Amino acid sequence: MTESATTTPKAPDADAIDENLGARYGDAAPDTLESVNDVIALQLRHRSVRRFTPEDVSDDAITAIIAAAQSASTSSNLQSWSVIEIRDPERKAAAAELSGDQEFIRRAPVFLVFVADWARNRLIAEQRDAGTAGIDYLESTLVSFVDAGIAAQNAAIAAESLGLGITYVGSVRNNPLALSDLLDLPAGAFPVAGMAIGHPDPDDRAGIKPRLPQAIVRHRETYTTPSDSAIDAYDDALSAYYASQGTARAWTPTVLARVRDEASLRGRHVMREALEQRGLPSN
Amino acid sequence: MTESATTTPKAPDADAIDENLGARYGDAAPDTLESVNDVIALQLRHRSVRRFTPEDVSDDAITAIIAAAQSASTSSNLQSWSVIEIRDPERKAAAAELSGDQEFIRRAPVFLVFVADWARNRLIAEQRDAGTAGIDYLESTLVSFVDAGIAAQNAAIAAESLGLGITYVGSVRNNPLALSDLLDLPAGAFPVAGMAIGHPDPDDRAGIKPRLPQAIVRHRETYTTPSDSAIDAYDDALSAYYASQGTARAWTPTVLARVRDEASLRGRHVMREALEQRGLPSN
Repeated sequence: MTESATTTPKAPDADAIDENLGARYGDAAPDTLESVNDVIALQLRHRSVRRFTPEDVSDDAITAIIAAAQSASTSSNLQSWSVIEIRDPERKAAAAELSGDQEFIRRAPVFLVFVADWARNRLIAEQRDAGTAGIDYLESTLVSFVDAGIAAQNAAIAAESLGLGITYVGSVRNNPLALSDLLDLPAGAFPVAGMAIGHPDPDDRAGIKPRLPQAIVRHRETYTTPSDSAIDAYDDALSAYYASQGTARAWTPTVLARVRDEASLRGRHVMREALEQRGLPSN
Repeated sequence: MTESATTTPKAPDADAIDENLGARYGDAAPDTLESVNDVIALQLRHRSVRRFTPEDVSDDAITAIIAAAQSASTSSNLQSWSVIEIRDPERKAAAAELSGDQEFIRRAPVFLVFVADWARNRLIAEQRDAGTAGIDYLESTLVSFVDAGIAAQNAAIAAESLGLGITYVGSVRNNPLALSDLLDLPAGAFPVAGMAIGHPDPDDRAGIKPRLPQAIVRHRETYTTPSDSAIDAYDDALSAYYASQGTARAWTPTVLARVRDEASLRGRHVMREALEQRGLPSN
């Protein structure tokens, strides 16, 4: 049993809540919220951790983390997702290379890959001589991707509650066919998101990244278009955060670089074809 | 401030952990896990709540819940999702009717609709005379759907930590065009999942639903195909759960009914066309 396994979140006090909300929203932070308990305080404190100590993560911890993931809601209880737990250093290095060649994946003792999984339900139907054409629609792919995301986030919260650090790895979709081969995924299973898990290096500087003001993301009754000034203010808040981390960077340039054109997707513009090749056509 | 706003999860004892794991996995439950703390115990206890008391949910609580949602990871910090908070009884009734005509949505004091939102990032690019063709790929739709799911699950955990009950509503995708009109969604925004939130009716009988054994969903290093006997055992466990709820139902028939053919999707086979009509073509 690792020391972190018994760590539970500290009860928050008003100053800590304000500090977390301030880090998350900058000047746009809401006043002290009476509803923030220790669970929500844990959620507010989330930061991506990419530097890990060499300490291992116990099987007991991963079992609890995956039990939490499975306890999340899943559409019609279909459970159309799976998770691959990679610990073998060679396989982890190969997965890292295929996923943006990111060193922190190699360094993490555990790399989880959450996969959309219609292979299992397809097998169940085929063994019972039932049809499976309902899988071949975009709706089915979306259900499994959303459910994988919901499950992954429960895993993230569980891991963080144990004092572990995580970073999501969307670049498991950079080379989905090769990664599927590496993980022996059957047709109908497809990588959605990776999650590097380990004990945070105390020297890791990454902080709580500011998000858009709640007024922009939360719409009361109907959708409202954000004001230019609110976007500009967020750009300033995020620039200030990055400056504190030693880099010069704002938000809107990131958005522009991502939405510009096909090349902005860095190879992921072929996702529809890749899904079809992996047995998930998007009719 | 509602009474529930200060409720924090109880520290778990070994018996409670075993009870929760037993409810979640039946005979396939792992032995007592040393890593289960009060946050994970809260996650293990999740059940969908469809019966609510008339008590309102405070603005303070929803602000905390959405702050938790925004604190979750989001791909490249793009924040390509939004949430619509519906409280107006008429609009809520209209949304309920469009979403499978489910009474519990009307009864819930708050109905959140998490939406994939590329409209915001498109606007930001257009205002800066930048290209937006990168949005028009399936990868972009998948990113926003997964991120909406990740955010929604943080909202779910936050709500449950406050003693509130939730049920996800995937049927917000039953009539996505009409629902988008009702919520004034701009082109590029699309409903992903609804979430009914309220105070659980103490008479609500819904329990902790068993999930597939961890051995089936968790794959060590590489994917492994489940054995027939493991699937049969889960069918038995779920049947026993439903019997305790007064209904006769197993798992595999639900799977077969969902994957069979186009008609199994109950109208959602047109999701690709609906997304394209809403400004999210899946190139």
